[in-house]
Order: sequence, then structure tokens, then C-alpha cells
Amino acid sequence: MPRVRMTIAYDGTDFHGWQRQEPPGREPLRTVQGELERAARLVFQAPTAVVGASRTDAGVHALGQVAAADLAAPIPLDRLPLAMNARLPEDVQVLDASPAPDDFDPISHAISKSYRYEFAFPEGDVRHPPLFERRRVCWSPRPLDAARMAEAAGAFVGERDFSAVAHQVHRRESPVRRIHACSVLRLGPGRIAIDIAGNGFLYNMVRIIAGTLRDVGRGRLRPDEIGAILASCDRTRAGQTMPAQGLCLRWVHYAGG
Amino acid sequence: MPRVRMTIAYDGTDFHGWQRQEPPGREPLRTVQGELERAARLVFQAPTAVVGASRTDAGVHALGQVAAADLAAPIPLDRLPLAMNARLPEDVQVLDASPAPDDFDPISHAISKSYRYEFAFPEGDVRHPPLFERRRVCWSPRPLDAARMAEAAGAFVGERDFSAVAHQVHRRESPVRRIHACSVLRLGPGRIAIDIAGNGFLYNMVRIIAGTLRDVGRGRLRPDEIGAILASCDRTRAGQTMPAQGLCLRWVHYAGG
Repeated sequence: MPRVRMTIAYDGTDFHGWQRQEPPGREPLRTVQGELERAARLVFQAPTAVVGASRTDAGVHALGQVAAADLAAPIPLDRLPLAMNARLPEDVQVLDASPAPDDFDPISHAISKSYRYEFAFPEGDVRHPPLFERRRVCWSPRPLDAARMAEAAGAFVGERDFSAVAHQVHRRESPVRRIHACSVLRLGPGRIAIDIAGNGFLYNMVRIIAGTLRDVGRGRLRPDEIGAILASCDRTRAGQTMPAQGLCLRWVHYAGG
Repeated sequence: MPRVRMTIAYDGTDFHGWQRQEPPGREPLRTVQGELERAARLVFQAPTAVVGASRTDAGVHALGQVAAADLAAPIPLDRLPLAMNARLPEDVQVLDASPAPDDFDPISHAISKSYRYEFAFPEGDVRHPPLFERRRVCWSPRPLDAARMAEAAGAFVGERDFSAVAHQVHRRESPVRRIHACSVLRLGPGRIAIDIAGNGFLYNMVRIIAGTLRDVGRGRLRPDEIGAILASCDRTRAGQTMPAQGLCLRWVHYAGG
């Protein structure tokens, strides 16, 4: 059975996250993986497991999730997106498909991932939450100082124990990750993005980093305090976990592409 | 009771249009007017009628709807948007409020209105419907030629009988309207907007003009055929009525502001 790698985009608002959820004796929850497997079963007339690189939480979006599947029948891969999209709901899309080695594992073979967290806030003519983007942007009723946040962002770069910005790390899991880049971009008046890339992320890590940078942006923390917060490994010293809606998985990279 | 004029924005996707609808013996439908009147009743502790300039249909959006209300109690008008928005759902917003003359009628006093209809289509890197804007943009699976559409758009400008691009005009209503401007803008790859302003619009008129310009854009009509279609007053010669989701009320103008 030919193995395929797909790039997937979704608006996470109306999904219970990526991972298939079939509570015993109840209706399956609406998930991205569940919808993709349902569509693949219709296309190939056979059960088809779809494995994703990142099990995004409920409400989290993706523009470049990567997924793998073994196809029950050969199909020209340039036609696969259209065949799948015709059977998918409008809030999830297969963007492209390419052949993958038989042993391709989207989870363990990933060498880096990038997320974006987006905030809107009052500034200039922007006085209200962005009406048509409210499902993918987090509104801060208080202004955020982008320059100050950008100054603080560099402190997250490097290889270290990130327990201070993670939701209760499991004992058997190492809390060490390498963050390659963390930057704050001004997208326009009252709009900023936090872009962060690394070899992996602990549970809720990006959403807690976003909450910590928000505290810098609204003056509750100084940029030079981030280093000590991370060194403390004390979750209570970092910022709040920001809502899922502002978070988007942008890309996943693999060795050789 | 002080009369106030408000500018209102909404994402029409989840509304049964602007106008309050209370079918006898059933739950009221979710409408923009209904939500505004409910919020105003909470703010002022009194029933408050809210009258809008344009009764937009189900699914149609607004960035600059104008509405009037007689307030049961004085309130500093710069605080009214915040007081209302705190009690409104997140898909409708009061953008601003200003004092209005006692006889201000947002419907009959309007001198011009502008709508935008937005299309997305495959072009360059754009190969799929815009994921996060799918609720406010109409996807055309076939490419549209913006230059050709722009050439045709001018034919809609002027004062004339617009029966050819209206849904069954009521016998007692004049089918004559004056269109001040109609233009087609390229917003980016695979994205165009039709902007149209006039002293008023017949039922479904903008959505039928959008469907007619789409036919020009995909080669089914020539730009120079628009004049004859309008002159015929024959609805069957114009294009299809485009879906509500691509339509947005941009502004309403009044004499003196």
C-alpha cells in the first residue's frame, strides 16, 4: 500500500482537537483526524488510518499540519487533495500530497515545528475585537507593547528545561526542549504575532509563553525577568495559559524536506 | 428620550438577517436587531426599539450598518458602545454612537449606501477556498478575469430600471435606482471585490450583479453585453443570485454626514 504524506489546514474552532475520540457508548466527537479518516474511507472504500505530526488541542488551528496514511489503492497524488476536499467539511482542507517512504513517521521524524500565536488589542483606529477574525485571534482589552515583547522573546531561545512554561510535565517525559527562534511581529495597528519554532513543545507550552509575553507587553513583567522565570522551573511565576483560539500550527519540518 | 445614531458591524453567518423575527408560538429567531434590542433592554432596563438603515438578509454581513434608537435614559455616548458590546454576542458590535435629531430616520434619510461582494478563485498559489475567510467570501472554482469584470462594471452606473438584476420587484415599487459607482478591485492573488454604491438597491440586486459580473469574469458573457441585459429588464438574461456570505454592507451616508 503506497504511503503518502499530506499537508493539512484546519480552522480548529469547531473541532474537539486533532485526535480521534470515540467515547464508548456515545457518538464520536468531531475531530480533525476523525473527519480525515471518514473522507479517506469514502475515497478509497477502505478503512484508512491518518496519523498527524502534532495532536493539536480543541480550538487550535493549523495551516501546515503534516499527516501520513497508507492508501488502500493507488491514486495520482496531484488528485488526492481534490478527492479528499470534496468529501471533507469546509473547515478542514488537504493542501497537498506527496509520496513518502514506507517507514515515514510524521511524529518521531519531525525535526522542527513552528507555531504562531496572534493577539489583537486596542490601538489607533482598532477599538474592538476583529469581527471576522475573532475565531483565530486572541483579543487583549489592554494595549500590548510589541517592542517590549520582542525584547523579551529572545530569552526563550535555546535548549533548556521548560517546566516553568508547561502544564504539569509527565514524570517520565524530559522537560528539555530546544527553541530555535522566538520573535514578535507587528502585523499592523493593534495586531501582533508571536512566532516560535523548536524541536518540540511541552503541553500548553506555546500558550503559556504567549501569556508570559502578554504580561511583558502590558507591563506586568520586565523583559529581563524571563530568564529567571525559566531558570526557576516554577510554573506559577510564568503567565496564564492563553486560549486555544489564538494558536496556529504553521509548519512541520523533516530531514530532507 | 435622547435619540442616538449607532454604527453597527456584524458577521451575518449565524443570524437570520437583520430584522427581528418572532414567529407566533415559537422561539424568536436569532437576528441582529433582536440581539441589539435585547442588549439595549439590559443596558437601559427598558424596552428599546432599534431601527436599521438596511434590512440585510440572512448570512449578509455589515461593517457600517446604521441604526437609530430612543434611549430610555441618558448615557455618555462615548460609553454606549462598550456598554452594549458587553451584553452583545461576539458576532455583532456597536462601533460608535452619536446624537441624532429627534426625527432622524435611518431608512428614509439615507442618501447612499455601499456594498462589497468578495470572490476568491484559484490563481497562483491560491488553490483552495480561503480557510479562515470562508464565511465572508464566495469561492469560485473557476478563475475570474478581474480586468474583464472591471470593464463590465461601469455599465451598471447610472439611473435606470434595474428589473433585470432584481428578484421580482413589487408592482407598487419603482424599479428605478441610481448607481453612483461600481468597480472591481484586485485584492491580491485569487481575490477580488466588487464595490457598488447607490441611492438604493432592489431585492437581491447586488447579489445578482455579482453573479452577472462573475459570468463576465469566467467568459460566459462579454463586457459589452451588460447594457443590453439591463435594457431588456429581463431577469433571466442576467447571472445567478450569488450566495449571501460574500456580501457586506460597508457604509450608509446621510445628508450632512
